[in-house]
Amino acid sequence: MAKAITGNAIVGQAGGPTAVINQTLVGVIEELQEYSHIRHLLGARHGVRGIVNEDFIDLKRQPRSMLDLVAATPGSALGATRDRPDQEYCHRIFESFRKHDIRYFFYIGGNDSAEAAQIIHSVAKNEKYDLRVIHLPKTIDNDLLANDHCPGYGSAARFVAMAFIGDNQDNRALPGVKLNILMGRDAGFITAASILARQREDDGPHLVYVPESPVLIDRFVDDIAGVCNKYGRCVVAISEGIRDDGGVLWMQKIRKGQGGAGETDNFGHIQLSGTGSLADFLADAVKEKLGETIGRVRADTYGYLQRAFPNIYSDVDAWEARLVGQMGVSYSVDAERGGSVALLRLPSTTYTAGTELVPLEAVAPPNPPKFKTLDKKYLTAKGNNIDDSFREYVRPLVGELPKVGWFEQIAVPPPEA
Amino acid sequence: MAKAITGNAIVGQAGGPTAVINQTLVGVIEELQEYSHIRHLLGARHGVRGIVNEDFIDLKRQPRSMLDLVAATPGSALGATRDRPDQEYCHRIFESFRKHDIRYFFYIGGNDSAEAAQIIHSVAKNEKYDLRVIHLPKTIDNDLLANDHCPGYGSAARFVAMAFIGDNQDNRALPGVKLNILMGRDAGFITAASILARQREDDGPHLVYVPESPVLIDRFVDDIAGVCNKYGRCVVAISEGIRDDGGVLWMQKIRKGQGGAGETDNFGHIQLSGTGSLADFLADAVKEKLGETIGRVRADTYGYLQRAFPNIYSDVDAWEARLVGQMGVSYSVDAERGGSVALLRLPSTTYTAGTELVPLEAVAPPNPPKFKTLDKKYLTAKGNNIDDSFREYVRPLVGELPKVGWFEQIAVPPPEA
Repeated sequence: MAKAITGNAIVGQAGGPTAVINQTLVGVIEELQEYSHIRHLLGARHGVRGIVNEDFIDLKRQPRSMLDLVAATPGSALGATRDRPDQEYCHRIFESFRKHDIRYFFYIGGNDSAEAAQIIHSVAKNEKYDLRVIHLPKTIDNDLLANDHCPGYGSAARFVAMAFIGDNQDNRALPGVKLNILMGRDAGFITAASILARQREDDGPHLVYVPESPVLIDRFVDDIAGVCNKYGRCVVAISEGIRDDGGVLWMQKIRKGQGGAGETDNFGHIQLSGTGSLADFLADAVKEKLGETIGRVRADTYGYLQRAFPNIYSDVDAWEARLVGQMGVSYSVDAERGGSVALLRLPSTTYTAGTELVPLEAVAPPNPPKFKTLDKKYLTAKGNNIDDSFREYVRPLVGELPKVGWFEQIAVPPPEA
Repeated sequence: MAKAITGNAIVGQAGGPTAVINQTLVGVIEELQEYSHIRHLLGARHGVRGIVNEDFIDLKRQPRSMLDLVAATPGSALGATRDRPDQEYCHRIFESFRKHDIRYFFYIGGNDSAEAAQIIHSVAKNEKYDLRVIHLPKTIDNDLLANDHCPGYGSAARFVAMAFIGDNQDNRALPGVKLNILMGRDAGFITAASILARQREDDGPHLVYVPESPVLIDRFVDDIAGVCNKYGRCVVAISEGIRDDGGVLWMQKIRKGQGGAGETDNFGHIQLSGTGSLADFLADAVKEKLGETIGRVRADTYGYLQRAFPNIYSDVDAWEARLVGQMGVSYSVDAERGGSVALLRLPSTTYTAGTELVPLEAVAPPNPPKFKTLDKKYLTAKGNNIDDSFREYVRPLVGELPKVGWFEQIAVPPPEA
């Protein structure tokens, strides 16, 4: 068992915000009050960038009332970053660590942040700098390996399920084709959660397309025509990361068609969110191929609302996000060098979650990057829907959803002669 | 005073759904139970279309428990329509009215439905058919004349204010330019409500563009550059109905640029919602003119989520929507031929609303169509923001909003030497 080292700690947030990432942050702050060997807790503004810029705030002396409010606020209260530390960047990080006697580094984020944590971890090892690196999972994409699910996912899934409950009613009122583009580059977890909106047999989403199943436009349009024949309307859930049968992102194909290569970030990912181009492309394809026969065709891209909408969060997700922060601090006392706090589902008749410290490499193995995707058993044979068994996985993470009211189909008495 | 006529009643819903349109419907159903001279209440499926198709359900014998659930459900429980009745259509409506001895017609909708109600009203007059036509206002656009505000608006405004609270936190975490396109063809009421998200001095939306003020792209980009200089980020609220200095819709100009004329509905309106093209056009303009200096540029179109999101509604709006339905039935007993139930704000130190029956023509005068727009006093001189005084108008309609938490900027102690 490793010995608790005396020194200071830093916590930072990275990547896209979520509805509950601040719960994890407040979990770290709360738990750290219990440990006297950690003298100061520095909050790094905008992740690793705040470390190199020495842009810190003191998190041990924040008023209690504000901590509760911060925990309930979506976004990243410390600010986030998408910076990917290279050799030179790491050098500056360790300069800052040495100067401030940092011995504990808590990094809240997804794959990219787990990778950044690994880089920092291995530099510490090489330089024989005694540092505990603890990665705290956060991603609405739900794609971290070694986790049953990730903090942030349940709340995004809840937003999507609720949005589809409303949108299905909207589409029922004014029938037509409605396409909704959802977040998810490589994994269809967010999109798959839309099936929770189905309460009645004819409720949408009637079709669901995820990155795990190739999407061909002709078949996509045929699928929609089939649903319209049956129900006179069609609501479709589509991941922003859908690909063709060669594995090429449709978003990339559309950009190329428009003469551009698409914007990429520091981790080499093409920009998928914050644009309506996939939605418009698919709507145009439906209009073009099905024409007037199909009625109204509309497409929405839910965009950033999915990850930072105030008051829409899952209670379970908020609780687990807090737990992950608390457990990270607790594990850091014993951990040799560090690790990632993984969320597990415990074998039980009712839903129960637990945590475990796993090696950093287990969460987001680099070269080539690996991540969790939807289990094949949830994909239907035609690749245009999600099996109902996915509900068992996702429902406990999302919580109870609003019930929809509808009139009984009571016939009016015939007119008097 | 007109005499209550014995016969049956029909209620229908038209136009885009809202979060509270079913409150109005349930208000009609509830109140009608009190009046014995109205024998049956027929619910017309999909508005006037259900009347000509005799597609009815009996609304007097619905279970009480389901009525409450329907009232709380977004969308239009009877189904809606955008059909505009012409001479021939009206002829079929009256055939159906005569057959079913309809003497009361309650039509829940916005401008277009008020116009449809007027047409039916005047045909009844010409044909000397004794009919009370009552229009019950509903529109998230809030653009009906003779009303202080319209049922549906407060809830859409609440959704938008909440969305901007979250999006402002998101943008604060990962700074850049964020453009959000909101509903509103001719009136900027929905977009203006985004200013309720401002809790701190540097909160977004930093810029607000509405149909009432002409938008020039060069100036728009300059405005954004100015905000970015000041805050390092910029959140912008933009109505889908923004126009250039010649009064031409930007959406129309974009479509023409893409070689199309744009889809129009039965009332001659070009399709603005259900597409991300305005958002993408504006984001591209910002990227092109400001380039790398400005950082991330993202654009979301909130789309249909604004009008039918479950559980996000204003309590005041829900209550008033119910009241409007109840009062419509009450007025129908006395009204000579009919009218529209207008919502008024009563002179009082605390917010108080009341209703009044106004002539149908007063709500949506045709030829040319007239509607309410934002009062000039709420538009800033530069046409790129909404004056803070608008809060007084909108806050009571929206209700209390979630508070945002943030850390105190407590500096960390200097490192020990």
